[in-house]
Formats: sequence, structure tokens, C-alpha cells
Amino acid sequence: MVPLHIRRIKLVIEYDGSGFHGWQVQENAHSVQGEVERAIYKITGEKARVTGASRTDTGVHAFGQVAHFDTASKIPPDKFAVVLNTVLPPEVSVVSSEEVPANFHARFSSCGKTYEYRVLNRPIRSPILAKRAWHIREPLDLEAMQLAAPKFIGKHDFSSFCASGHSVITFERIITASGWQRDGECLVYRVSGNGFLYNMVRIMTGTMVEIGLKKRPPEDIDALLDEKNRNKAGITAPPQGLYLVKVHYPDGEY
Amino acid sequence: MVPLHIRRIKLVIEYDGSGFHGWQVQENAHSVQGEVERAIYKITGEKARVTGASRTDTGVHAFGQVAHFDTASKIPPDKFAVVLNTVLPPEVSVVSSEEVPANFHARFSSCGKTYEYRVLNRPIRSPILAKRAWHIREPLDLEAMQLAAPKFIGKHDFSSFCASGHSVITFERIITASGWQRDGECLVYRVSGNGFLYNMVRIMTGTMVEIGLKKRPPEDIDALLDEKNRNKAGITAPPQGLYLVKVHYPDGEY
Repeated sequence: MVPLHIRRIKLVIEYDGSGFHGWQVQENAHSVQGEVERAIYKITGEKARVTGASRTDTGVHAFGQVAHFDTASKIPPDKFAVVLNTVLPPEVSVVSSEEVPANFHARFSSCGKTYEYRVLNRPIRSPILAKRAWHIREPLDLEAMQLAAPKFIGKHDFSSFCASGHSVITFERIITASGWQRDGECLVYRVSGNGFLYNMVRIMTGTMVEIGLKKRPPEDIDALLDEKNRNKAGITAPPQGLYLVKVHYPDGEY
Repeated sequence: MVPLHIRRIKLVIEYDGSGFHGWQVQENAHSVQGEVERAIYKITGEKARVTGASRTDTGVHAFGQVAHFDTASKIPPDKFAVVLNTVLPPEVSVVSSEEVPANFHARFSSCGKTYEYRVLNRPIRSPILAKRAWHIREPLDLEAMQLAAPKFIGKHDFSSFCASGHSVITFERIITASGWQRDGECLVYRVSGNGFLYNMVRIMTGTMVEIGLKKRPPEDIDALLDEKNRNKAGITAPPQGLYLVKVHYPDGEY
């Protein structure tokens, strides 16, 4: 009997999160992971488990979610993108696929992530951006938000910016980039770091939007990082403005 | 009896055309016009007829459709935007509202329009842009398309760029601006003119995309304008990439 040659495949996945109950498979809920597993089954006949780098929440989008799975299929690794897209729904697309070493793990091998958060800032809501951005009617002070954002850079305890009730080993995370830019009627926040706590980007964004509304001064960020108290930080920004842009892996290792 | 004071209201309307059978009210079809008329009825109790500047097709979007209607309501004209948005579905939004003279007509007073057409040019389809752009997998030669676009500027007979079977008084139209720009992974065509024939922007775009694919040289545009034959021009680009950006009216007249 010829032994099966098992390969590990890495996928980069883009999705419109509007119609999904997030990334992760759940009982009786429509998930991105479930769609990708169903597509692999249709193509290979294998019931593969697909492991994602990030469990994005309901309504959160991704330009560059990363996932891996193992397969005995003879489909060339770089062709998985094209063949999976023929059976995936329009809301999900595999941007690229490649073979990776068996010790690659989408989540545990990752050394960081980049997220984007889009705020539509104008008096009237936009049908075109309804499920793509957080709509804030009152004018935001972009300069104040631009003063606040870099205060997150560095190694900090992010207890104030983590949804309560989530136990983790440490609340320390390193943020390497954090800044706001204008893009037409939108204000766009981009943040990179070695890891993110539950709802962390959304609470950071919600707090900075309160700074943009002049409800808080930019200096509040320093105080909140010191205080380590979720109740002192701002609201959790809604999911539809959040995009997982990229998952980072150590250069040259995989 | 106090005579009713009838006012004409101009609306600027944004919509996501994905879920609509176009602008115009039709039997048993979901239309933008129908939604706006329903919203006015809910707010004023009046069965107003709303007249749009452009009858956009199924799947076509608008940032700046213009429409007018007459009302005896005492709602301040500039407040119609806010109150109509409270009852309109998320796919339609009134961006602004104002009183205009009784001789203003959204369609017949218009002296021109600006459209945008978005082409996503990358090998893999995008879930985020699925209903927002035309996806072309093969790399497009932007430079060739940029050479072709200005050839439309000026007064020409656009018979080659009009869906057949539509009788109009004249096929002559004046194009005042016509050019392509890159926006990330998208190529964006922007065109302004005094009027547009049926499917004109979509046939112009389809023809220029064939130029970008090297199936035709940019000089074909000159020949097609001369030939006045729809069958010689390119395919009709699909609706989901088209946006009605602005309807122009003579400065200071309304």
C-alpha cells in the first residue's frame, strides 16, 4: 500500500463578515471556518479541520485571515486558492495558498497581526458603507485622535482594553504601530502588534473616538494603561468597522 | 379655508443598488423610487410622485442621485433628509434636502452628470468588493486605457455606445471629462457629460477594458465614434461597478 503523503496548506482568506457569525464553527450558525471546511470537503472529499489565526467576531471583516489544514490531496498547493474559490460563496475568497512545514500553525506560529478600523464621519449615514464602517455623525477631532494613537506603541498592560471576564496568562502586549489617517469621509485607524486581547482593537478605537468627540483628552490613554481597569476605558466600537488586514509570521521561517 | 402651500423639494440620494431592480417603480419589483415614495408617505401621509434625474439600472449604485417631489407638509425643507432617513431602509439614504422653485425638474433641469466605474483588477475575486466593482482577473494595461479615455471628450455621435433598440432624438452628446486612475487594486473611470445614452457608460467602459486587455488599440475609440455601429464596440460592463456620482444643474439657477 502506498503511504499517504500528507501536506500542510496555508491559506490567506478575505471575507465580508456581514453575514457570518464570525470565523469559528458553532452549532447552527453560519461561520467562515465552516464555509472553508465545506469547500475543502467538496474539492478533496476530506473532512479537514481548518485552524484560523484569529477568531474574528460576528460582523468583523478580513482582508488577510490566515488558516492551515492538512490534506492528502494531490492538488498542487498553490492551486488550492483557485479551486476552493470555485465552490466558496461570494462572501469568502482564498487569496493565496501554499505548502508550509508540518510545524507551521496559523495561530501559534504567528508573531503579530495588523488590523484596520474604519469610521465614517459625516452627518448622514451611507448605504454604500453601512456594513463596512462605524458611522459617527458628530465631527471628530482627527488631530486629537492622532495625538492619542501613538501612546499605545510599546509594551503595555492592556487590562483596560480587554473585554471583562476573559482570563489570559498576561495582559501584556507589544504594539508596534498605531495611527489614524483620513480617507475621504472616513477616518482609518491602523494598528500592528504581537498579539491582541479580546475586543482590544474595538475598545481602543471606541476610546479614541471619545477623544475625537472631546469627551476625553488624549492623555487619558496614558492614564488608562496605568489604571488597568476596563470600566474606565471607552465603549467597544461596533464590529462592522473592523478588518483583520494581515497576520505576520517570522520572516524566512515558513 | 386656508389654501395649501405646496413646495417642491430636491433630494440628493445615495444608495447601494445591489438589492434593487433599479431606480424606477415597477410592478412587483423592489425599486429605490418606491422606497423613497413609501418613506414620504410614512412621514407626510401624502402619496407623492418622486421624479429622479436618472433611471439607474438594476445593481447600479448612486452617491448623488437627484430627485424632486411636491409636498404640502410643514416639515422644514432641509429637515426632510433627516426625517426620511428614519424610515428609509439602510440601503437608501437622503444626503441632503432643500426647497427649489416650482419649475425645477430633477431630470429636465439637469445640464449634466458625473459617473464613476470601478474595475477590480487582480487574479482572485474579492468578497468585500463583490457587489461594488467589476472583477477582471487578467492584468489591465492602465496606460492604454488612459490613452483611450480622453478620446471621448468633446461633441460626438455616440451611436456605437448605445444599447440598440432605443430611439432617441439625437445620439450626439458632449463629454467634458473622461479619465482613468488607479486606486489600490481598482482602476477607476470617471466621466462627466451633458447627457448619457442607454448603457453608454457601461459600453464605453467595456470597450476600454478590451483596450486594457490588448484586444483592441486605443485608436479604436476614434474609429468607433466614426462608425456609429453598436456591434463594433466592446461588451457592456456589468452594473455593479457603476456609480452615479453627481447630477449637475446650472449654477445659481436653482
